[in-house]
Amino acid sequence: MAASDDSIPVESAARQREATPTIRDVARLAEVSIGTASKALNDNGRLSAETRQKVLRVARELGYRPNHLAQSLHRSKSMTVGILTNDSFGRFSFPIVEALEDRLADQRIAVFMCNATDDPERERRHLDQLLGKRIDGLVVTARRSDKRGSIEAYVRGIPVIYVFAQAEDADSLSLVPDDEGGARLAVEHLIKLGRKRIAHLTGPAHFEAVALRHRGYSAALGAAGLAEIPGFFRNGRWSEASGREAVAELFDGAAAPPDALFCGNDMIARGALDALRDRGIKVPEQVAIVGFDNWDVMVTGAQPPLTSIDMNLKALGREAGERLIAMIGGERMTGVRRLPCTLVVRQSSGGAA
Amino acid sequence: MAASDDSIPVESAARQREATPTIRDVARLAEVSIGTASKALNDNGRLSAETRQKVLRVARELGYRPNHLAQSLHRSKSMTVGILTNDSFGRFSFPIVEALEDRLADQRIAVFMCNATDDPERERRHLDQLLGKRIDGLVVTARRSDKRGSIEAYVRGIPVIYVFAQAEDADSLSLVPDDEGGARLAVEHLIKLGRKRIAHLTGPAHFEAVALRHRGYSAALGAAGLAEIPGFFRNGRWSEASGREAVAELFDGAAAPPDALFCGNDMIARGALDALRDRGIKVPEQVAIVGFDNWDVMVTGAQPPLTSIDMNLKALGREAGERLIAMIGGERMTGVRRLPCTLVVRQSSGGAA
Repeated sequence: MAASDDSIPVESAARQREATPTIRDVARLAEVSIGTASKALNDNGRLSAETRQKVLRVARELGYRPNHLAQSLHRSKSMTVGILTNDSFGRFSFPIVEALEDRLADQRIAVFMCNATDDPERERRHLDQLLGKRIDGLVVTARRSDKRGSIEAYVRGIPVIYVFAQAEDADSLSLVPDDEGGARLAVEHLIKLGRKRIAHLTGPAHFEAVALRHRGYSAALGAAGLAEIPGFFRNGRWSEASGREAVAELFDGAAAPPDALFCGNDMIARGALDALRDRGIKVPEQVAIVGFDNWDVMVTGAQPPLTSIDMNLKALGREAGERLIAMIGGERMTGVRRLPCTLVVRQSSGGAA
Repeated sequence: MAASDDSIPVESAARQREATPTIRDVARLAEVSIGTASKALNDNGRLSAETRQKVLRVARELGYRPNHLAQSLHRSKSMTVGILTNDSFGRFSFPIVEALEDRLADQRIAVFMCNATDDPERERRHLDQLLGKRIDGLVVTARRSDKRGSIEAYVRGIPVIYVFAQAEDADSLSLVPDDEGGARLAVEHLIKLGRKRIAHLTGPAHFEAVALRHRGYSAALGAAGLAEIPGFFRNGRWSEASGREAVAELFDGAAAPPDALFCGNDMIARGALDALRDRGIKVPEQVAIVGFDNWDVMVTGAQPPLTSIDMNLKALGREAGERLIAMIGGERMTGVRRLPCTLVVRQSSGGAA
């Protein structure tokens, strides 16, 4: 868990680099090559004492201070980074990749994209190819943030970050959304609006995110002194049909149906919403709904528009770029970092202004 | 319009290369380096007459025939290709990029991804960076297939393909879906099912795809001897709300409303479907609906599931990879190539088995 709110502030380091003298300036004024200036400043290589002295004097006069990050970046062999996706480029990996590419482009780092489609042989081939290109770093991403085998041993020495993916190895660095915290936000919002019979309709049990969100749901209920009602937690599929089925089971002929639904994704929420409307049950008046993912198409297409939890995938991608740059610069970071989710309130929960 | 159903069949060339002798085999048997074998076979470079004779004899005995495509690929400087997207990685560019990357990976060509987000300065910077990496080819893609400035002059000499994007320059090669043909398929399907009052709800007029699909709609009606009904062609937005609004305008209080809706995308179709259900109008019995894009989430979430037009984006991506490989191999292709769409029948049109 070494990582690091004290990591180098990369943005400001980059900005500063333009204003402050560089090794190039030192070399020009000392009338030596950049290589010679570097040898003198790093006190290595074969160099006459006079030349070394001259370079050091110029550096002092200019106020030159070596920027380790910039140094590492410029020493690096390729100024390229690989992104290895699995499963396929999807709704989740794209905002991450887009923001990551954006952040790296600021540092003039180019991005190789490879899609291994969950095929180990293909992944191995992609890794070989990336290693052949002498990438400076590697980002591994996936469709869901479940655990996967680490590949550090295979790419030996190259910094690796797992984003929206988790490495099994504790020495790896993984960045994932805080699913448990996101679920807590959703349920606390419903409780604050006066709901007491809150059901949780979610995806298949084997997703880690499903277990974490369940934990957040239970924690929020417990903290408010609300008991979990038997049958109100339901595993299903990540689809609208699954939301419709859950509504049929929870509402048809029920003496005491839910007064709120917290759904594991926006499709389940959308399906539940439509099924309630078909039954003449009013949303949010009779049943408040909160989704998960804040997927624009779903939340704005729904009637009424869906309150949802945003995983801030772009922030996750930017953070991954940030940290990868720091790791290429020599920092070491490990552990699983969970980045906060955000509640986005719309009409389906009745909480909109 | 040079392109080319007589282009080199790349798949089979690649397969063949594994079965037939390579220059490596020739070199090994002639006991010379690959460089020497290459000089002898290409009749260039400084070489003793004996060595040259020996190589040529071995080549003859082995049945070696130079593969120009493989040669070009191996001569190429980097075995990398750039993909420049604009606007952002979206629902349309993902399947294209995925299939393209897949196709190129088969040839061990790695893919650099850059997102210019419609910012010309950023695009220029990305291109400079890609040129610095000595890419062998470039694919330009966008969110919609509207015309854009050509960049061949800037990347001088590097093959460029526009996919789901169109270059203004007639000497460029652009691959786009056949929007007009797709629209014709949709309307012909509705006509075949006995519909006579077919409306077309679509996106903003400034999209080229909107104009082309309108043309296909008119052509199909005309071919069946059906008149276009005033007010039945409606520009709107690419959203569910737009579909709902169009239904309100076309159906509420109308003496002779449509008996079918051909929608410019699946979101418009979904919104229209929901609005009809809210009015107690039965789909497909009273109104048949066909969407466009065949977007899994929308078409399967809808009740009933949507009949839709598939643009075959993965096929488009594969085809782009295919052609780019041929162009890197020295072929020249120009013009706008429109690849066929497919009708996918589900319950909303009443045409499902």
